[in-house]
Amino acid sequence: METEKQTYRIAVDCMGGDKGPGEVVQAVSLALKDLGAGDKLFLVGQEEVIRPLLCASGIADEPRVEVCHAPDVIEMDDKPMQAMKSKKHSSMIVALEMLKAGEVDAVVSTGNTKVLVGAGTIKVRLMPGVQRPALSAIFPRKTGYSIVVDVGANPETTSEQLVHNSVLGALYSIAILGTEKPKVGLLTVGTEEGKGGERINRANAYLKALNERFDWFEYAGPVEGFDVFQGDADVIVTDGFTGNILLKTVEGLVYMLKDIIGGKVKRNPIYIAAGLMLLPLLRSIKKQVRPEQFGGAPLLGLNGLVFKAHGSSNKYGTAAAITIARHACSKDINKKAAEVLSVANDVIAEVQENF
Amino acid sequence: METEKQTYRIAVDCMGGDKGPGEVVQAVSLALKDLGAGDKLFLVGQEEVIRPLLCASGIADEPRVEVCHAPDVIEMDDKPMQAMKSKKHSSMIVALEMLKAGEVDAVVSTGNTKVLVGAGTIKVRLMPGVQRPALSAIFPRKTGYSIVVDVGANPETTSEQLVHNSVLGALYSIAILGTEKPKVGLLTVGTEEGKGGERINRANAYLKALNERFDWFEYAGPVEGFDVFQGDADVIVTDGFTGNILLKTVEGLVYMLKDIIGGKVKRNPIYIAAGLMLLPLLRSIKKQVRPEQFGGAPLLGLNGLVFKAHGSSNKYGTAAAITIARHACSKDINKKAAEVLSVANDVIAEVQENF
Repeated sequence: METEKQTYRIAVDCMGGDKGPGEVVQAVSLALKDLGAGDKLFLVGQEEVIRPLLCASGIADEPRVEVCHAPDVIEMDDKPMQAMKSKKHSSMIVALEMLKAGEVDAVVSTGNTKVLVGAGTIKVRLMPGVQRPALSAIFPRKTGYSIVVDVGANPETTSEQLVHNSVLGALYSIAILGTEKPKVGLLTVGTEEGKGGERINRANAYLKALNERFDWFEYAGPVEGFDVFQGDADVIVTDGFTGNILLKTVEGLVYMLKDIIGGKVKRNPIYIAAGLMLLPLLRSIKKQVRPEQFGGAPLLGLNGLVFKAHGSSNKYGTAAAITIARHACSKDINKKAAEVLSVANDVIAEVQENF
Repeated sequence: METEKQTYRIAVDCMGGDKGPGEVVQAVSLALKDLGAGDKLFLVGQEEVIRPLLCASGIADEPRVEVCHAPDVIEMDDKPMQAMKSKKHSSMIVALEMLKAGEVDAVVSTGNTKVLVGAGTIKVRLMPGVQRPALSAIFPRKTGYSIVVDVGANPETTSEQLVHNSVLGALYSIAILGTEKPKVGLLTVGTEEGKGGERINRANAYLKALNERFDWFEYAGPVEGFDVFQGDADVIVTDGFTGNILLKTVEGLVYMLKDIIGGKVKRNPIYIAAGLMLLPLLRSIKKQVRPEQFGGAPLLGLNGLVFKAHGSSNKYGTAAAITIARHACSKDINKKAAEVLSVANDVIAEVQENF
């Protein structure tokens, strides 16, 4: 429908990630296939490390790739404020500065989440009406996909912030998954009202009121853990503490299942035969349950597009993050947000008066 | 090691559960195979419903089974206080009264969790030193099993209650899984200290101090969601909000995987052949990832043994709950708890003074 004339520039922080810069550069070479002819990727990091990797990946002469030297590296155990002070020339901070200066349209990083959230908030700044940024993740479910917000940016999310995350998640669902009228569920421990404590009750009251105000948004009410994979909510909103634990628990389970299947299949000749026949099936399960195909978790609520690819992402996950960042650029997902957040905050204030 | 001379009496609430009393009676007939010759099961519920089911399950003449008539039924949407007042003659309340009166050694129920927690607390009473009961669940992990506490009894768990749940979970792990020196992990959003907010920081400080006091208990520090299935903590302690969402999300994912496998296998003849060959493998995965084999979640912190079998439990799950309740009776799991909790509360008070 849309006319895609525009080209976009994305800064890729090459120095983060558990698998090192080699994996990120391979991800870049994969992602290039999905990008437009006029798009540009800025590979930020230690030039002496990145150049040889470009050769190894066969993209040394790729005109859409440019290397931006950044000597410092943010480690996984660096603290946000300390890293921002002492590592101004790190790949992550330089990439964020490029976004702030308008030199790129989006940033993708596999680095330290805490620093990305902190530095992203300070450099790129929060949208008007937002108090804290939120990370989202896309999960497969029985009938489609659900977006879970927040998966770890803000562990102590308030009722008001749950509402902000609801509208940001809904806008993201429209932009990225093409959802027509996103159903938003509030994650809690029981679907009856009154369960889950004061914080959930307040958020529930705000969201019910908000439901009356937007015709593009549907509040589906409280939902339970079961609904993440089995329900019909397009957006599942929760605090960053619960969301992060949920995301990582699911990841751990998927790895365990793969180990069980892998281990057993190796030991038994019947399983080897059957396993070969089942390979396409296993591949499809893997595809369906691995978040890597939607590897980019956007930091919602910022005045710019910052995507976090999981620290343990392989090249496919990081490539998906780059592709999704490009997609988000083309959708201008932040355009409607300020207006919508302002209405949401008005509704919150009205409900608070009568609570 | 132990000399098992004792016999035990268990009250089974037959009227709860999504699958109805028929499934519970079938569970009883399965569980009888694992019980001692002198053990006794009291089937509590509507006699006119239960009697024919006993015939159907071929245990009408079983001397170890006795029916206790209770005319009322607690529904899944009943509220605790209201149910306790208006449904005094319900199967769940009658079973709890039997435990309170010392007529049975344990109660197993598949009914309404909220009512079981509320009524269990009021009828059976809390152990000295405990503020709120906690539900535990057993998860498989890479190397063994982990016990997650709390999975939904107390959504707003305080730092102090996290400590209580840690020692109760550790004692349960020793009794039920035979763990020698249980490693306890505090579930949060990052393993560095200082992550997860004030509540987690306090609990972390208490648990570190407690680690010095008990030689049978090891505080493994903060753990992440990934560790539930991949880590080496025997007990994972969390609030009832996060724990409940975690449990139900995992359940939803396992059902989704089964649907994917089932759906695909049905549609494709190659998969049917391969699927048949893989049946033992699938069964073993199912066994390893389904909590039903450890179907009984004990309500820790009460002065008596109350086990919750999941509302959607099938006969195998409920049978496992009965068997595990019998096992817990023989271990006298509550004996050491009062003493240990008293030490834990002393340690909490000491740390609070210096916090």
